[in-house]
Amino acid sequence: MSAFASDNYAGVHPDVLAAIGAADALGHVVAYGADPVTARAVERVREHLGADAHVFFVWGGTAANILCLESLAPLAHQAIICAESAHIYVDEGGAPERLLSRKLLPVATPDGKLTPALAATRAIRFGDEHAVQPAVISITQSTELGTRYSPEEIRALADFAHDHGMLLHLDGARIMNAAAAQGISLRAATRDLGIDALSLGATKNGALGAEAVVLWEDRFAEGFAWRRKSAMQLASKHRYVAAQVDALLTDGLWERNASHSNAMARRLADAVRDIPGIKVTQDVQSNAVFALLPETVREALYADDFVFYVWDEHTGEVRWMCSWDTTEADVDAFAAAVDRHSAAS
Amino acid sequence: MSAFASDNYAGVHPDVLAAIGAADALGHVVAYGADPVTARAVERVREHLGADAHVFFVWGGTAANILCLESLAPLAHQAIICAESAHIYVDEGGAPERLLSRKLLPVATPDGKLTPALAATRAIRFGDEHAVQPAVISITQSTELGTRYSPEEIRALADFAHDHGMLLHLDGARIMNAAAAQGISLRAATRDLGIDALSLGATKNGALGAEAVVLWEDRFAEGFAWRRKSAMQLASKHRYVAAQVDALLTDGLWERNASHSNAMARRLADAVRDIPGIKVTQDVQSNAVFALLPETVREALYADDFVFYVWDEHTGEVRWMCSWDTTEADVDAFAAAVDRHSAAS
Amino acid sequence: MSAFASDNYAGVHPDVLAAIGAADALGHVVAYGADPVTARAVERVREHLGADAHVFFVWGGTAANILCLESLAPLAHQAIICAESAHIYVDEGGAPERLLSRKLLPVATPDGKLTPALAATRAIRFGDEHAVQPAVISITQSTELGTRYSPEEIRALADFAHDHGMLLHLDGARIMNAAAAQGISLRAATRDLGIDALSLGATKNGALGAEAVVLWEDRFAEGFAWRRKSAMQLASKHRYVAAQVDALLTDGLWERNASHSNAMARRLADAVRDIPGIKVTQDVQSNAVFALLPETVREALYADDFVFYVWDEHTGEVRWMCSWDTTEADVDAFAAAVDRHSAAS
Amino acid sequence: MSAFASDNYAGVHPDVLAAIGAADALGHVVAYGADPVTARAVERVREHLGADAHVFFVWGGTAANILCLESLAPLAHQAIICAESAHIYVDEGGAPERLLSRKLLPVATPDGKLTPALAATRAIRFGDEHAVQPAVISITQSTELGTRYSPEEIRALADFAHDHGMLLHLDGARIMNAAAAQGISLRAATRDLGIDALSLGATKNGALGAEAVVLWEDRFAEGFAWRRKSAMQLASKHRYVAAQVDALLTDGLWERNASHSNAMARRLADAVRDIPGIKVTQDVQSNAVFALLPETVREALYADDFVFYVWDEHTGEVRWMCSWDTTEADVDAFAAAVDRHSAAS
Repeated sequence: MSAFASDNYAGVHPDVLAAIGAADALGHVVAYGADPVTARAVERVREHLGADAHVFFVWGGTAANILCLESLAPLAHQAIICAESAHIYVDEGGAPERLLSRKLLPVATPDGKLTPALAATRAIRFGDEHAVQPAVISITQSTELGTRYSPEEIRALADFAHDHGMLLHLDGARIMNAAAAQGISLRAATRDLGIDALSLGATKNGALGAEAVVLWEDRFAEGFAWRRKSAMQLASKHRYVAAQVDALLTDGLWERNASHSNAMARRLADAVRDIPGIKVTQDVQSNAVFALLPETVREALYADDFVFYVWDEHTGEVRWMCSWDTTEADVDAFAAAVDRHSAAS
Repeated sequence: MSAFASDNYAGVHPDVLAAIGAADALGHVVAYGADPVTARAVERVREHLGADAHVFFVWGGTAANILCLESLAPLAHQAIICAESAHIYVDEGGAPERLLSRKLLPVATPDGKLTPALAATRAIRFGDEHAVQPAVISITQSTELGTRYSPEEIRALADFAHDHGMLLHLDGARIMNAAAAQGISLRAATRDLGIDALSLGATKNGALGAEAVVLWEDRFAEGFAWRRKSAMQLASKHRYVAAQVDALLTDGLWERNASHSNAMARRLADAVRDIPGIKVTQDVQSNAVFALLPETVREALYADDFVFYVWDEHTGEVRWMCSWDTTEADVDAFAAAVDRHSAAS
Repeated sequence: MSAFASDNYAGVHPDVLAAIGAADALGHVVAYGADPVTARAVERVREHLGADAHVFFVWGGTAANILCLESLAPLAHQAIICAESAHIYVDEGGAPERLLSRKLLPVATPDGKLTPALAATRAIRFGDEHAVQPAVISITQSTELGTRYSPEEIRALADFAHDHGMLLHLDGARIMNAAAAQGISLRAATRDLGIDALSLGATKNGALGAEAVVLWEDRFAEGFAWRRKSAMQLASKHRYVAAQVDALLTDGLWERNASHSNAMARRLADAVRDIPGIKVTQDVQSNAVFALLPETVREALYADDFVFYVWDEHTGEVRWMCSWDTTEADVDAFAAAVDRHSAAS
Repeated sequence: MSAFASDNYAGVHPDVLAAIGAADALGHVVAYGADPVTARAVERVREHLGADAHVFFVWGGTAANILCLESLAPLAHQAIICAESAHIYVDEGGAPERLLSRKLLPVATPDGKLTPALAATRAIRFGDEHAVQPAVISITQSTELGTRYSPEEIRALADFAHDHGMLLHLDGARIMNAAAAQGISLRAATRDLGIDALSLGATKNGALGAEAVVLWEDRFAEGFAWRRKSAMQLASKHRYVAAQVDALLTDGLWERNASHSNAMARRLADAVRDIPGIKVTQDVQSNAVFALLPETVREALYADDFVFYVWDEHTGEVRWMCSWDTTEADVDAFAAAVDRHSAAS
């Protein structure tokens, strides 16, 4: 299958599978995270994100997001400002409302990116008991639209949040793509910019199913063990989750995987950008290409067994995602098909 | 580490790791469960549990339990009758209350097993708007105390539940141990006895982290996809979860693993039963041994680096669990140590 | 105090107080609603809204809304489409999310009124497990902006909802104002137009604290007793709540109260409409006047001890509410002050 | 109706009705509690319970309990220890689980009263992430069984709670009965004994529908406004709720009402205690009498149109409640009937 549908269609990087095997070779180890594999993985995350980081592993990205948000906003009347396109707002099946019983305050954006001015439209009614109280701004880096905040833009949001008594969460399902594209460390891309809680994504970068919650203040981490357990995200054979993150953060694997998928997206965008009838609609700043193309071309590509999703049913805009295992040949074959079908239409 | 602490301390069976590798070798496949590995795993579960079974895979056992219970009792005022020792009541960090906002109605039991008479003490106040309404009886097989319901005992509970407008859930974290011990099929141990929803445990039987929710009526399964998603249990790279269950259910691996751990528990019980000062406190009917022993002996075993848990802080009763990878040598060395320290005390 | 701040600032209509006294004169009666006062009040509501109506009394309007919504959408993944200005979305302190763990899907409107076309922007992704599933459209009549749906507009929304497998809820905190303005019965204003669940407001119409939930299908009412009890809205001395609604629905009191407050709003709008610097911003179709006025005028009115609220902090738009006890003299004095201060500014 | 079924069957004390009328006579006042009636009522409660008391009014007793518990235990993994007979455990339709998503840890008691030793059986597993964490002990005074804690007994529980990092809540639906019986002030019966949060009951003492939440530390009150609003317990015409509590706390009305109902219960117990076949089963220490009597006698009383409830379906134990408006004639007539039917049986 040649797929540009999602970076979740990709398999597991061989080094991650090897790390799972190495964790297995230890035989019996303590369950629920009190094992040496987890201890080493926590240290590895701290090497990247700071010695003061509280690190917790979970299975999935929705869980990482929700547990970050609950850690920053523990009470039901606290609300979360986010982009209307945020994964937590549109693609988690209502998990934030179900698990947290909390209101998300969406803001329309042109490119998936919040700004202080946009967030300000929702940062209102502080002290009014009839209204939920904005407590957290949540942003996604790189965004669901493949765009990227600059470090300065994140810093401005952090300052805005903190100046208004709020905190800043980063949904980092693809933070590795963003940091690699910017050529900065994971820490420089997050904590150093004022991020209070990070969902550190690993699955899309080549893991089997592993994410980390990273919190930089003791007060946010207090009680986290129970939040994770009661949210059904404490793995019993915990070493196998921790080992995956460890592997990606070892010897720069995360950066190689991210840079590769970013490069494949740029290669694809460059190859199709000038094809008549094709319009690349968002800046290609990570591993996604958003484009408009004639419906006939789209259907012809589907008929060729290429797999990808329509992002916006009204406009027909599509999303093409690249992943750590996308090859240049994959990209070139797909771009050639786009060219061929466009010429024919 | 020679551990009798938990069957979660064990590693992953080689055949399960191989199945993960085989799933990986497929390259790109559709995410979120619409892939051929999942399709095959669903069929495999149906071979064991009936063609009418609705099958959903999740990461953890707490999630399997909670999603089963929500499927049977979708409304907040519906309550669940369970043993006071049930995992859902004491060991899931409040997840049932948090996720379901539902009341559990605990019943004290001598051996972890409910009976119709015991359940009847909680099956009261039907129609009274001031009281929650019992809607489900939840039992564990084999129980948290290592005991086992006979098929007749489960059938009697199913009849009692159904006669009172309730449904029967089985927490089958160790159903494989029970079925293997009884020499019956998984279906004969569950659906054929009137079970309405089953948490099919795989992790303790040799998986990495995989469980299945099995529901036998369409109405219970309706909307399940959203329940799982909003409970943060829909794996993106879903094939790797499904492959684990498939592997255990192929060529009788589940039964070999379960029979082995059961045999190790019997071997251990037989070896220590007659040691002066040791009292085996529950019938050894699966892969657990519960025992009372002098505190000095316990401490001496800990000093030898044997790992196991005190089950009851008040009485000092301990639990020794065997797993698929416990060896006869492990058992014999441990029993010898018990004997040696008991003689010395 | 001469207040145009809220119809909740008004007192209780003397006939309602008398009804409370009459209920009290019965001495001991059964608690929790199994009393003759409640029975009579239920019948009274049915006279107005149909013999097939299920009627339940609660203390407050937020509760009436939430219990209606839960009755129509009992599962957590079901979502509610509403106007961005809806009371349930902005003024209930997050109660819908807290109590129901459900997502509201807001739609921007110019006048507080949904249309099928507007609702259609949120009626999407049916069957997609990653997205909440729209199950209810909730509208407010008269709206939070003082505007009013025509019967045809409501019927069109009901048809749209039902055609898409959804249901229609009406937040009727001021349904009496709307029905009185339209000169139609409460039933003609609700059920006859396709409404599935109605929050029947009484408090703003002259009650002390009483609202009713009205449901027209047995399946929506099933289990309602527990929903109300567990939502903490089952009054123990229930007769005193029921008596209030009964009084308003007896001998046309509801209509007299509503017509009066509507007339006072029209009188006010007519008196200020042509004052230079004043702009009435919404059609005055019930008991509210929305207006823009110079900040100096607003401050001068505050200095005169007139009480009213700024509705929109960005534009300075204010809301002037009339109630059953607003007098012509109140209106004239206020309008004169607006005129006087406008001339001076 | 001559009823001994519940103190909720009683009407409203005339002084309370008069206070409602007086509040009404003020005409327009600010809604939602920022009115002079509420301000005076808050001060009145503080006169009784301490100048440092945070006071919030709500409609119902279930709400008062739940908002107290949420104030003391704001996080989902915090659990509440209570008697198995506690109203919050058995008679609130699952509201604590629904609203708080929190686990209650019930303890069997002979007389409805917890002790440190009994609470200790549930005050376990601190720090264990697999178990909910006991954070609050909740007691009822006077208890659901009509018994009463001595001041020393409450103090011992407060010390036990505080020594173990927990807090003490008192469900005071009938605290006025207890304090009156003990001849001490409301403060001496609560805060002076170490109570951290009090549900101050007024409805059973002669109000129409009003209770107060009383919290003695700033940190417990922080955010309470949103807890109340989102729990749907913020009355819009708030003055009418506050006025009721004010009336009962003025000029000793609370004590006269409570003492009277207590006296009627003693009169009833004394009159029936020695009737052959009748057994008073609990100490009569407030306004309730619990008794065993032959089923034939019970049915004969029902045939006479006396109304009361069977408390325990298994034993046939009944509860006879007295209220502020129970007369000596009511009691004597009822006791005579018990005597007559007992003699006949």
